[in-house]
Amino acid sequence: MATSKKRAKRISKSHKKVGLPPGTMTYVGNKESSELIIEVYNYTPEGVTHKDCTTVEDAVAFLATDAVTWVNLNGLFHVKAIEELGKSVGMHPLQLEDVVNVNHRPKIEELTKGGLFVILKMLYYNEANELIIEHISLVFKDNTVISFQEDDKDVFDIIRQRIKEPRGVIRNKQADYLLFAIMDAVIDHYFLILETLGDKIEVLEDQLIYNPTDNLVGEIQQLKREVLKIRRSIYPLREVVGNLEKAEHPSISDDTQKYFRDLYDHTIQVIETIETYRDMLWGLMDMYMSSVSNKMNNVMKVLTIIATIFIPLTFIVGVYGMNFENMPELHYQNGYYIVWIVMLVIFLAMLYYFKRKKWL
Amino acid sequence: MATSKKRAKRISKSHKKVGLPPGTMTYVGNKESSELIIEVYNYTPEGVTHKDCTTVEDAVAFLATDAVTWVNLNGLFHVKAIEELGKSVGMHPLQLEDVVNVNHRPKIEELTKGGLFVILKMLYYNEANELIIEHISLVFKDNTVISFQEDDKDVFDIIRQRIKEPRGVIRNKQADYLLFAIMDAVIDHYFLILETLGDKIEVLEDQLIYNPTDNLVGEIQQLKREVLKIRRSIYPLREVVGNLEKAEHPSISDDTQKYFRDLYDHTIQVIETIETYRDMLWGLMDMYMSSVSNKMNNVMKVLTIIATIFIPLTFIVGVYGMNFENMPELHYQNGYYIVWIVMLVIFLAMLYYFKRKKWL
Amino acid sequence: MATSKKRAKRISKSHKKVGLPPGTMTYVGNKESSELIIEVYNYTPEGVTHKDCTTVEDAVAFLATDAVTWVNLNGLFHVKAIEELGKSVGMHPLQLEDVVNVNHRPKIEELTKGGLFVILKMLYYNEANELIIEHISLVFKDNTVISFQEDDKDVFDIIRQRIKEPRGVIRNKQADYLLFAIMDAVIDHYFLILETLGDKIEVLEDQLIYNPTDNLVGEIQQLKREVLKIRRSIYPLREVVGNLEKAEHPSISDDTQKYFRDLYDHTIQVIETIETYRDMLWGLMDMYMSSVSNKMNNVMKVLTIIATIFIPLTFIVGVYGMNFENMPELHYQNGYYIVWIVMLVIFLAMLYYFKRKKWL
Amino acid sequence: MATSKKRAKRISKSHKKVGLPPGTMTYVGNKESSELIIEVYNYTPEGVTHKDCTTVEDAVAFLATDAVTWVNLNGLFHVKAIEELGKSVGMHPLQLEDVVNVNHRPKIEELTKGGLFVILKMLYYNEANELIIEHISLVFKDNTVISFQEDDKDVFDIIRQRIKEPRGVIRNKQADYLLFAIMDAVIDHYFLILETLGDKIEVLEDQLIYNPTDNLVGEIQQLKREVLKIRRSIYPLREVVGNLEKAEHPSISDDTQKYFRDLYDHTIQVIETIETYRDMLWGLMDMYMSSVSNKMNNVMKVLTIIATIFIPLTFIVGVYGMNFENMPELHYQNGYYIVWIVMLVIFLAMLYYFKRKKWL
Amino acid sequence: MATSKKRAKRISKSHKKVGLPPGTMTYVGNKESSELIIEVYNYTPEGVTHKDCTTVEDAVAFLATDAVTWVNLNGLFHVKAIEELGKSVGMHPLQLEDVVNVNHRPKIEELTKGGLFVILKMLYYNEANELIIEHISLVFKDNTVISFQEDDKDVFDIIRQRIKEPRGVIRNKQADYLLFAIMDAVIDHYFLILETLGDKIEVLEDQLIYNPTDNLVGEIQQLKREVLKIRRSIYPLREVVGNLEKAEHPSISDDTQKYFRDLYDHTIQVIETIETYRDMLWGLMDMYMSSVSNKMNNVMKVLTIIATIFIPLTFIVGVYGMNFENMPELHYQNGYYIVWIVMLVIFLAMLYYFKRKKWL
Repeated sequence: MATSKKRAKRISKSHKKVGLPPGTMTYVGNKESSELIIEVYNYTPEGVTHKDCTTVEDAVAFLATDAVTWVNLNGLFHVKAIEELGKSVGMHPLQLEDVVNVNHRPKIEELTKGGLFVILKMLYYNEANELIIEHISLVFKDNTVISFQEDDKDVFDIIRQRIKEPRGVIRNKQADYLLFAIMDAVIDHYFLILETLGDKIEVLEDQLIYNPTDNLVGEIQQLKREVLKIRRSIYPLREVVGNLEKAEHPSISDDTQKYFRDLYDHTIQVIETIETYRDMLWGLMDMYMSSVSNKMNNVMKVLTIIATIFIPLTFIVGVYGMNFENMPELHYQNGYYIVWIVMLVIFLAMLYYFKRKKWL
Repeated sequence: MATSKKRAKRISKSHKKVGLPPGTMTYVGNKESSELIIEVYNYTPEGVTHKDCTTVEDAVAFLATDAVTWVNLNGLFHVKAIEELGKSVGMHPLQLEDVVNVNHRPKIEELTKGGLFVILKMLYYNEANELIIEHISLVFKDNTVISFQEDDKDVFDIIRQRIKEPRGVIRNKQADYLLFAIMDAVIDHYFLILETLGDKIEVLEDQLIYNPTDNLVGEIQQLKREVLKIRRSIYPLREVVGNLEKAEHPSISDDTQKYFRDLYDHTIQVIETIETYRDMLWGLMDMYMSSVSNKMNNVMKVLTIIATIFIPLTFIVGVYGMNFENMPELHYQNGYYIVWIVMLVIFLAMLYYFKRKKWL
Repeated sequence: MATSKKRAKRISKSHKKVGLPPGTMTYVGNKESSELIIEVYNYTPEGVTHKDCTTVEDAVAFLATDAVTWVNLNGLFHVKAIEELGKSVGMHPLQLEDVVNVNHRPKIEELTKGGLFVILKMLYYNEANELIIEHISLVFKDNTVISFQEDDKDVFDIIRQRIKEPRGVIRNKQADYLLFAIMDAVIDHYFLILETLGDKIEVLEDQLIYNPTDNLVGEIQQLKREVLKIRRSIYPLREVVGNLEKAEHPSISDDTQKYFRDLYDHTIQVIETIETYRDMLWGLMDMYMSSVSNKMNNVMKVLTIIATIFIPLTFIVGVYGMNFENMPELHYQNGYYIVWIVMLVIFLAMLYYFKRKKWL
Repeated sequence: MATSKKRAKRISKSHKKVGLPPGTMTYVGNKESSELIIEVYNYTPEGVTHKDCTTVEDAVAFLATDAVTWVNLNGLFHVKAIEELGKSVGMHPLQLEDVVNVNHRPKIEELTKGGLFVILKMLYYNEANELIIEHISLVFKDNTVISFQEDDKDVFDIIRQRIKEPRGVIRNKQADYLLFAIMDAVIDHYFLILETLGDKIEVLEDQLIYNPTDNLVGEIQQLKREVLKIRRSIYPLREVVGNLEKAEHPSISDDTQKYFRDLYDHTIQVIETIETYRDMLWGLMDMYMSSVSNKMNNVMKVLTIIATIFIPLTFIVGVYGMNFENMPELHYQNGYYIVWIVMLVIFLAMLYYFKRKKWL
Repeated sequence: MATSKKRAKRISKSHKKVGLPPGTMTYVGNKESSELIIEVYNYTPEGVTHKDCTTVEDAVAFLATDAVTWVNLNGLFHVKAIEELGKSVGMHPLQLEDVVNVNHRPKIEELTKGGLFVILKMLYYNEANELIIEHISLVFKDNTVISFQEDDKDVFDIIRQRIKEPRGVIRNKQADYLLFAIMDAVIDHYFLILETLGDKIEVLEDQLIYNPTDNLVGEIQQLKREVLKIRRSIYPLREVVGNLEKAEHPSISDDTQKYFRDLYDHTIQVIETIETYRDMLWGLMDMYMSSVSNKMNNVMKVLTIIATIFIPLTFIVGVYGMNFENMPELHYQNGYYIVWIVMLVIFLAMLYYFKRKKWL
């Protein structure tokens, strides 16, 4: 339930935006408390400088160097800082608007004066095991990559580590490879999400077989919704990564393009897996429905067996409970025993009948 | 029900049109009482003139000026005025026919002598919470945008405000930006519709889980129909906005084209959301069906438990209600108590059986 | 049922054709009694000549004039006349075959020596309210349009009227506009069909909600089949009209092409409506199934309530109907009344239980 | 059942082929007993020679003549003869392999040295009313058409007749027309198949309405499978015939291409019909399921009415069957009659209740 | 169950990989125990050399010869050896990564310095009758084909045999034909898989008709999942083989391309068959659901018949079990017999009613 409540809240916020002129930057997410931290990595094959700036000016200062620079801004609530930083690399107001519009779908665009603007969705499960979809924007220009993210939780630790390693591949490559590395980190993390999802589906399936309960349908539905959400976040990636793989962007070297081709393969694989999960969830729903039908069938069988056996017998004993004056059988010495025998025969005949019908 | 009644009425009207020669302007909507008001905004970066004209001549007079002019005509019932106004900017009779044919789907066309003709659908919920689909036509030519709408209720107040603000972006741009601004206002409003729809779906889902009633299926069906209607109104927009984004219309500047690209992103997002809602509604129907099955299952279980326990017991008491002369048990001192004990044992055995079957 | 019988008959006839060499004209429809009438309209802006010819020669005589000529042949059974007439404008034997093959799908083809050959389906409901699909072929060459139709019932009266009006648009245009006018009359009529269909769906929906009966499923099925048939007749039109709108046929003027563009919009709208109806019919089937389930649920509830209340009570009275000698309760002064009180308590407890379960 | 057994057998055979080098000709069908007959028709507008050869040499001798030659080989079991004949017109080993691989899907290919190679499926119902799918390969080169078929049953008798008629169109055309004529004969026969199928669906539908039995679902399933099989055989034809219609094969004259265009129309019509049948069969399954639900509903109603009426009455008579000493009613003069009246009132009240609920 | 357990394990492993820099070779499969064996075949039309090398150096030595060389490496666990071997033919690190990433989907890529890199899936059922999907990579460069496979079980024995045969086609062709032969062996084996699957579906169908049990739904579900997995492995092949058939790879001769065209036909056929199986499995689920409903119907009928017959009779005998003082019927001489006759009449009337309703 928690997830759907959350979604409701997010959507409600999004209409803050309706009615504003285009190009107005409005953060429509709900992570407002985060403080402004601009993480900067400035590296050459020879060395790395790492600094956590708190003002945009500090960060922008690094852009002028010859080294590759990664500027990572946390907290889309800091609209002013984002605008300042974005304008320093020549972003269009409409693009700046998209950076903070967390409902925007993944896309790729060229900057007006050269360079690329990419929107992605970062997926992870939080501590409460809810699926979090975070909005990430990347700007790549010359020897700089700027990343804007909603929260200070991310999947980029591996990149930070690799940048710090003197012999890391990343240190010897240009900023286009850094762009790839960040996108790769995001998309690689999808596999973890898919794995968790796959495990959930399997657990559900086992429960359906060994212990089907009424609320399973709610859980299937919940998973379906999760798959739907993931699908919406991932589907447009096909186009985004496909564009990087196929189009000739002058700022992306042939060598790096090979890496994007590899990333494209991963994207397709993620999409195919999510489709398979979708099919499997539909299958689960079918299994659930048939298990419900089977249970009902079994309930009915028990009722039918008991009723079919005892209703006729109750009739018989009713007959000899009548108070007619003239009922010869009542006076027979063995009348009572004969009735018992008759009833036993009926009882056994019924059992045999049900046995043959495979109801027992 | 109200909505479907309405639809019936509208369709019935549409056949007024069958049999007329093409190019005949016939208003097939049902908002006939509205008075003719032609709202004119004539603005330059320096100043704005606003006038509510009541004759076409007054409005046309503004077109000759160098300033950007927005002419907004309310009431498609005023066929004559529309024809006059349309011809003044060189519209084709077939296009004039489409302006008043409220069933026409969204489209974009070029005017014969330069300029663009766009049909959109404006969606809003009225006071009775019914979804209203209003037919809007836009004509863009030189420094003029003409909008034709069915009713005087619209979503353009934000544009009126922005035009009046001396420093507004809109004041410093040409008519192509005005065209964008109007389309943007319409499409931005879709997000509000989607939000309302999303809330309705959530409420339904909660009801399905906590308080499923028989008439929920009617409400799901109603929502499905609403989604179907919205979808039909929005789908063709992909093509319309896509055309403005991609094609090279000489009258649309490169700068404005960027805004249309942004609008295209929004359109795609609206379409994707509506598709997701569709999937969710199908899921709800599944949930409903399985909830109905589960309820039936529970009803059956109660019946089966009661019947299975008491039918055999009733048989036993029936046996000792027989009137045979020779029934030794009847004369036992503790016969009655023994029967009670036997019945108690059967009763407990049954309870245990149902417990093990997890029916209790 | 009538419709499906009819279809059976038509299909049965179609195999008369199997085994004949291609280009053999065989009328496979079932309207054989109609007499040969060749209606000819020959008009210029100045005047009209109208004649109902009974021989092909009479009709062909008009073709040589400079005026626009519309030749309308009723009765596809008159294979010889069709052949003669067709050959006079240079039709290929295969095209002549298609004129009388009423099962042929809509298409557009060029004539060998210039001109166009179009196949359409005319839909109408007959007096028995059955959907009739009539096969219509149009040949357009120079200043002539020839139409071949199965029956003398048609939707062309408005064209006849307009030709007779001296100031009608049609009188001032060439034969390409006449071709458009005929196709427009056919396609405009589809809207009436869709309206009737929409009304039927609504009536069904109301019945499903207020008075669901067993045979509604048959009616839903019947409508589905009707939608399927209409869809098959209309779908290929997208291509046919699209071709006229897009391709550059030298014999179609730019001005008329605009009208075909308008017709194309209508065609798309018809197709979209039919698709919506299809979705709605599927929804109805779902509603029906859930209404059946709900009814069953209610039946089961009544049974369960009655049985659950009275079966235990019947057991109790059974107990005191036993004939044991030693049953102390039977001799209590108020035994009988105590039993009644006990039973009343059980009865009320049951009622409370069902109330809480919301079964009452 | 028979059909599915057969299919099992055929598939089992197909794995004879797995593991053989490509280009190895292995007949995987199950019609092994047929004798080698090579039917040859050699004709010009002036005259026809017809001979049933038993050796390939005899047949090949005709190929050198200037006349059009049709060589028809029955029995794909005669791998050697097929190889010899195929090589005489320059077929590739892989194409020869496809001639005898009866599981191969329809396709069209060019021969290495000019000419065309076409694979089709011939469908017919055999005497046991089973759907037979026969594999047919056609080779067209210069003035020769060679056809390879599995069995001596075929649909080519009409072609044989037409060749023998001195004034037949076929006699005056080249071999490309013969290729068309053979393909036309095969595809025309599909209409007969569709007709039979349509009749079967109608019969099923009538049975579903008037006399639904349990095994209807098996028959629907059987028809679905048949439709699936036909679909698989016919779908690739779209591409095959489309290629002949559109591509410019130098050996096919413009005139004949018109005939292929006609054939293409027929192919599309066959495919559309099969799709309609598929939709109808799904609809039948829905009807069946709802008819089952309705029947269950009726069964439940009968049970509920009887039980609801008599269970309370039985309780009442049980009350007065109790043996309490002090039961005043028992001693009333009219106690018995009063009870009867009470029961009658209850009975009538129940009837009224059920009437109002429309269960009676 | 076993299969799904397995899958869970494999997926779990795959996240070993998340977080590693791209180009890092990590074997994510679970066949780690296999020893390194590099099988080398070096052949010309004149002779064959076969050697099982244990070091990469031994194998690489053969590559320099003019003869065609097939290097087959078993065991993807040997990452070092694979890297060494791969680099000797100029593979990119990303391609080497894909060789050991057993979850990678089938694809085709060019090597940086000429040559092709192909990923396939080899399918077989193991002894436990589980479907095994093995990851196979092929590298083709100049006169060499290198194949990397997970396990020492494979489907290549026929190729080994054919290489050893002095007159085999393969001996007289170049390495491009060897590439084809290996892919052909893999794809040909799919037909065996499909056959087994087809047999399983048929067995299930027979069981559904003759002996439907509750756990059939689990088996249908299992098969659906298997079809889903196969589909995912085979679908991308369309593109892979299609590329080889259509694109002009300079290293693939025209002659061999014909073989790839043939392989493409087979691939399409495999895909079509798997789609048919999918449709059939959905049909089975429908059959299962309707069989469950029918069984429930029959259970209900038995209950209803018994209850409907005996409940009224029990009421009657209850009436005459009452203890009213004044009940005249009790004193009739033949009262008892008359009651029996009345009950018999009711009994027979009921039977007749059920007979007419076709419940008996």
